[in-house]
Amino acid sequence: MAKPLNIGMIGYGFMGRAHSNAYCKVSNFFDLEYEPVLKAACARNEENIKAFADNWGYESVETDWRKLVARDDIDAVDICVPNNLHKEMAIECAKQGKAILCEKPIAMDVAEGEEMCKAVEDAGVANMVWYNYRRVPAVTMAKQLIDEGRLGRIFHYRANFLQDWTIADDLPQGGAALWRLDAAAAGSGVTGDLLAHCIDTAIWLNGGISDVTAMTETFIKERTHSLTGKKQPVLIDDACTFMCHFENGSLGLFESTRYARGHKALYTLEINGENASIKWDLHDLHRLEYFDHSDEGKMRGWRSIHVTDHGGEHPYMDKWWVPGLQIGYEHSFVHQVADFLAGYAQGEAVSPTFRDALETQRVCDAVLQSAESKQWENV
Amino acid sequence: MAKPLNIGMIGYGFMGRAHSNAYCKVSNFFDLEYEPVLKAACARNEENIKAFADNWGYESVETDWRKLVARDDIDAVDICVPNNLHKEMAIECAKQGKAILCEKPIAMDVAEGEEMCKAVEDAGVANMVWYNYRRVPAVTMAKQLIDEGRLGRIFHYRANFLQDWTIADDLPQGGAALWRLDAAAAGSGVTGDLLAHCIDTAIWLNGGISDVTAMTETFIKERTHSLTGKKQPVLIDDACTFMCHFENGSLGLFESTRYARGHKALYTLEINGENASIKWDLHDLHRLEYFDHSDEGKMRGWRSIHVTDHGGEHPYMDKWWVPGLQIGYEHSFVHQVADFLAGYAQGEAVSPTFRDALETQRVCDAVLQSAESKQWENV
Amino acid sequence: MAKPLNIGMIGYGFMGRAHSNAYCKVSNFFDLEYEPVLKAACARNEENIKAFADNWGYESVETDWRKLVARDDIDAVDICVPNNLHKEMAIECAKQGKAILCEKPIAMDVAEGEEMCKAVEDAGVANMVWYNYRRVPAVTMAKQLIDEGRLGRIFHYRANFLQDWTIADDLPQGGAALWRLDAAAAGSGVTGDLLAHCIDTAIWLNGGISDVTAMTETFIKERTHSLTGKKQPVLIDDACTFMCHFENGSLGLFESTRYARGHKALYTLEINGENASIKWDLHDLHRLEYFDHSDEGKMRGWRSIHVTDHGGEHPYMDKWWVPGLQIGYEHSFVHQVADFLAGYAQGEAVSPTFRDALETQRVCDAVLQSAESKQWENV
Amino acid sequence: MAKPLNIGMIGYGFMGRAHSNAYCKVSNFFDLEYEPVLKAACARNEENIKAFADNWGYESVETDWRKLVARDDIDAVDICVPNNLHKEMAIECAKQGKAILCEKPIAMDVAEGEEMCKAVEDAGVANMVWYNYRRVPAVTMAKQLIDEGRLGRIFHYRANFLQDWTIADDLPQGGAALWRLDAAAAGSGVTGDLLAHCIDTAIWLNGGISDVTAMTETFIKERTHSLTGKKQPVLIDDACTFMCHFENGSLGLFESTRYARGHKALYTLEINGENASIKWDLHDLHRLEYFDHSDEGKMRGWRSIHVTDHGGEHPYMDKWWVPGLQIGYEHSFVHQVADFLAGYAQGEAVSPTFRDALETQRVCDAVLQSAESKQWENV
Repeated sequence: MAKPLNIGMIGYGFMGRAHSNAYCKVSNFFDLEYEPVLKAACARNEENIKAFADNWGYESVETDWRKLVARDDIDAVDICVPNNLHKEMAIECAKQGKAILCEKPIAMDVAEGEEMCKAVEDAGVANMVWYNYRRVPAVTMAKQLIDEGRLGRIFHYRANFLQDWTIADDLPQGGAALWRLDAAAAGSGVTGDLLAHCIDTAIWLNGGISDVTAMTETFIKERTHSLTGKKQPVLIDDACTFMCHFENGSLGLFESTRYARGHKALYTLEINGENASIKWDLHDLHRLEYFDHSDEGKMRGWRSIHVTDHGGEHPYMDKWWVPGLQIGYEHSFVHQVADFLAGYAQGEAVSPTFRDALETQRVCDAVLQSAESKQWENV
Repeated sequence: MAKPLNIGMIGYGFMGRAHSNAYCKVSNFFDLEYEPVLKAACARNEENIKAFADNWGYESVETDWRKLVARDDIDAVDICVPNNLHKEMAIECAKQGKAILCEKPIAMDVAEGEEMCKAVEDAGVANMVWYNYRRVPAVTMAKQLIDEGRLGRIFHYRANFLQDWTIADDLPQGGAALWRLDAAAAGSGVTGDLLAHCIDTAIWLNGGISDVTAMTETFIKERTHSLTGKKQPVLIDDACTFMCHFENGSLGLFESTRYARGHKALYTLEINGENASIKWDLHDLHRLEYFDHSDEGKMRGWRSIHVTDHGGEHPYMDKWWVPGLQIGYEHSFVHQVADFLAGYAQGEAVSPTFRDALETQRVCDAVLQSAESKQWENV
Repeated sequence: MAKPLNIGMIGYGFMGRAHSNAYCKVSNFFDLEYEPVLKAACARNEENIKAFADNWGYESVETDWRKLVARDDIDAVDICVPNNLHKEMAIECAKQGKAILCEKPIAMDVAEGEEMCKAVEDAGVANMVWYNYRRVPAVTMAKQLIDEGRLGRIFHYRANFLQDWTIADDLPQGGAALWRLDAAAAGSGVTGDLLAHCIDTAIWLNGGISDVTAMTETFIKERTHSLTGKKQPVLIDDACTFMCHFENGSLGLFESTRYARGHKALYTLEINGENASIKWDLHDLHRLEYFDHSDEGKMRGWRSIHVTDHGGEHPYMDKWWVPGLQIGYEHSFVHQVADFLAGYAQGEAVSPTFRDALETQRVCDAVLQSAESKQWENV
Repeated sequence: MAKPLNIGMIGYGFMGRAHSNAYCKVSNFFDLEYEPVLKAACARNEENIKAFADNWGYESVETDWRKLVARDDIDAVDICVPNNLHKEMAIECAKQGKAILCEKPIAMDVAEGEEMCKAVEDAGVANMVWYNYRRVPAVTMAKQLIDEGRLGRIFHYRANFLQDWTIADDLPQGGAALWRLDAAAAGSGVTGDLLAHCIDTAIWLNGGISDVTAMTETFIKERTHSLTGKKQPVLIDDACTFMCHFENGSLGLFESTRYARGHKALYTLEINGENASIKWDLHDLHRLEYFDHSDEGKMRGWRSIHVTDHGGEHPYMDKWWVPGLQIGYEHSFVHQVADFLAGYAQGEAVSPTFRDALETQRVCDAVLQSAESKQWENV
């Protein structure tokens, strides 16, 4: 019998659902020493959090997050709230000796992130940040191929995250549903929301970033606030593009926007190495495109690998269905929970930890600073 | 609070897992009057079924399916066993007044299927067959587009289901794991296993099939039996192709094989109408390809619709994540359970019923007969 | 200096243009012993043929094809006229000792084709039929891969040729422009026009076809004749589908139609072998899709080979541009002329000869007969 | 009868072939007042230029370009030589009153380009630069769609040109074949060779560029010179990336490299507008991808338009074959010649003129300067 790991969830939005689903499913598909138990869910609005708890099977609710964190029957806290609340909660969780699973980006800025890292490291609690795309099987496989040395010297890394959901100029900003458009809650726009994902994966796959030069834009200058009904300036970045150097000498190119008509959530990445190249995109997340120069000359071509084999060869896929049958977005969270639980059982840190996420934050900060200074900035 | 619908599951193989997962998830994502409760799981091997029940949270186990069916606390039985066992179990379930969710194909042949239809209809029990692909959102959307009259007169329907997992001549046949290669258990090879899916969708989308001419082949003539270790003739069809006329005057072309190197589970369908055409394939199941001749001349092209919007526009997708984030194979079962539960609450039949599945069986029988007779056969 | 090969062209339609372009270009790109010289063009309508000759640089015109064929200064005759005229012209060319390049299909039926074969073989004249798709580099490469034994035992061959240009019921039939819809001129509909291409490539790649069963359909039963303005029955096949056995034991599936909305000229082929599979389609003719089971397990995927390298590795491509820059439809004719001229210089037959084309005709006849008899027919 | 336009060609390399082919073919497919006549070809090496002239049918050769330019029987000079020779030749041509078709980029830098513009404008001679990709039908169609206002306000423009042919570190530099790697002859590396194409199309489609910030890299620092055999520093840019603002307020992102393993000549562009988006790439140049937000909600998807219709709807395609049959790279040059001849007949400038190309040069210079200064630079 698996041992329980009692989860306390703070927040109940989109990510609250995605994480709860992962906690529910992981034990059906992964054989692990620990099993998550949905102990309590927390939010200020009691009615909302009760409905959420009822839907997902949380045993109890809290309306004060400090109470939740203080409870003896909670082993791990999942912080699923806007970015401006991460720091305070995480530090309190660390004080209380709880394991922490925190939404990304880790914080509003590097200074906050550093405090958080210090707190969890001093307390010695397990900690992880929800950069879930590392655990899409095709992305995990990309990491394996790189680690196996198949690509050789890397020349180029490029990634983008393109959406189109904020083009309408009558879309309001702020409030619970649209806090991502509110700089006070989100810290930044696409940089923290979307580019942070691209940067996390990039550092994981290709190592550290040394310097950046960036350009941001806010296309719609004013929006009505969803609560006050008043027109207010838009303070987040609608689009952000940056160029960079990686520590390994390769060049990086990153772009994110919510104004790319026709793209819903098009996170793409491509790595060009001396010997091989890799491409992936989130719209068909179960495929990895791979080009290998060591193939016989006339036979070279981009291979579309349907990452759905389940003989132990494709990461995580032995847990699911049969070859050819794809999984989806939500499974990346299941994999992350599975890995977290496995690490927890061994007392081992599971990446991305707070400290890993701090590196991403460092790049985000440099990007935003460069957009301001119009200079290259060191990370 | 949702009312419980107590499920008794017979079988614990691949489909047992897929269905169990659907029962577990449906209430997290769909707001329904009934909620499935995993009451009991049944199989002859006690150790295996206990492990299965433990993994999925079934409250109890049985090793005699008649006992399970007889239990008062079971409302619905899920028949997830080889095809040669469907008839006896389904008829017994009907006698006991249980709702039935039966794996496909409905039976070994039309005669069996007719008995089963009579039994459930006489008993007045809810009944459904697991032709799950109808509930892949892109396929459901194809049905909507056809019903909206967008295609006009239909000229062509083609579908195939291509796999490559039995090419190795040292693959054994028979036994629990490989009963699909055993004619005594499966009835037929690809015809009942794969083409049945294609036929079910085809009838749903394009109406009845009137006559067929078919060709089957068994490429590997003998295989070792996985239990006895003896070489035995292979009695199933490794490949089956047929042409047909639909009642609406369109032409049909169907192919299935387990010898198409490079294709894992490539179920594809295409419909060509006077005004528009539709394509879909299971390897990228979240996309629907659509060509509309009423588009302005120079702007015509196949549209790749990423069926992931969730404003109520794309079938089922309002229940899941956000636009651009794909779901997978397993979700088709969740949708089928959701629809079944909704129909159950209203006392309404949910398609595909046993009778719907009997129509598919009728085509399968005609196909196998034509392959034998080398003649056109009426359905 | 290259030696001249004086060409006499009969016809000036679509194919007359395609062949003339090939004669004009071949010497710019291929280094050959012979160079085509556009000596004379022939058609009944003097004004039209003069305009055509002027445009392409033919030195003279004729309005009586027998005169053209009788001219001493003509070495080779290109027969670019409706199918019902091939036999008489080809036999006369043979009598006059001319080399013959004849449009496909070779004739109205096998009986005619046999007469033609006898004539050219008795006369010992060079002869070729314009099944041009063999010389699309990606298709030629498919042949190489098969000949190199990369596919192993073949299980399946499938091909289709889908168009949509005759869906409108007010499209007239007959006359110079629309003779392909006129059974008297064309012999058949899609069978001779489109399937013949598929069959020629199939026999070339996969060997002989032993028996067939076919289904044809004429969706629009009557059309106005473009010259008489009268409604007349449509006597050609609008669609034709057939299944077959190849002599090597593999199964074949072929479909052609002019009623597949959304497809302009979608000729596709796929071959599934024990070890590898190949796919190709005419809408992106410069790509070959290839799946190799001998690739390392987790790395297997369909490779999209951009057949544009020019280091002697991709067939014909060393003659054109640089890697990545695609050629088009018309180049297949240039390649065929180049091969014909090379063979001519050596006194060697160049495939597809009349006799090769007769094999395709034999399959076409069996297909049409089967559609009539509703039986399997031996080829 | 068409009037002759006597062409004098300087150079005989890859572009000499591409242009010669265009001159040869244009009159077969386009009905124009002027017809190019291949009057003379010129290069210092007499043997080479004779072979070239013989192959393409040039009536005569010269070994001194000044002689060619001075000939009375030459109407137009095609400058197909390394970039460092453009200025002197073009100015001399202008003096001699010749029309000029000059390879791109126009010059080594803006200063040279300005002299050239002044010369041709003072002399009033027809002038054009070979930015051929504007005349790929799908790209021309993109321009039409933008001019028709289908995209609305533009937010993003991105383009890249990725190759992989210089990755090997034993590739030499310099000499006739590899002058593109020689800074003295080429001026720059990928910036002038590849990005210049991207910039030309971008300005044409999206208007002027106001400022840029760029990053360049030379991955292989030393190469053997192909003539001297000595190791020498590589002075060109192997890769160049830049971000920019367009005058219309949209953001631009451009990348070019010869170190992107797996890409032969992958020129791609994408434009995101408020209402619609467009994508194109050179590896499948006959397709235009188009997303239209004004499509009915659930039906929205990227359309893959096969730009091969020939009823006057798809640019230039009425001149070629039938729908579905693609053309290739070389046809872009034929189209450019056709447009040049049509403009010449009317005495109208045909874009891109020298002055248009100077705008592109201005951006290239700013890009290279920014890479040096590590600052944003105004164009």
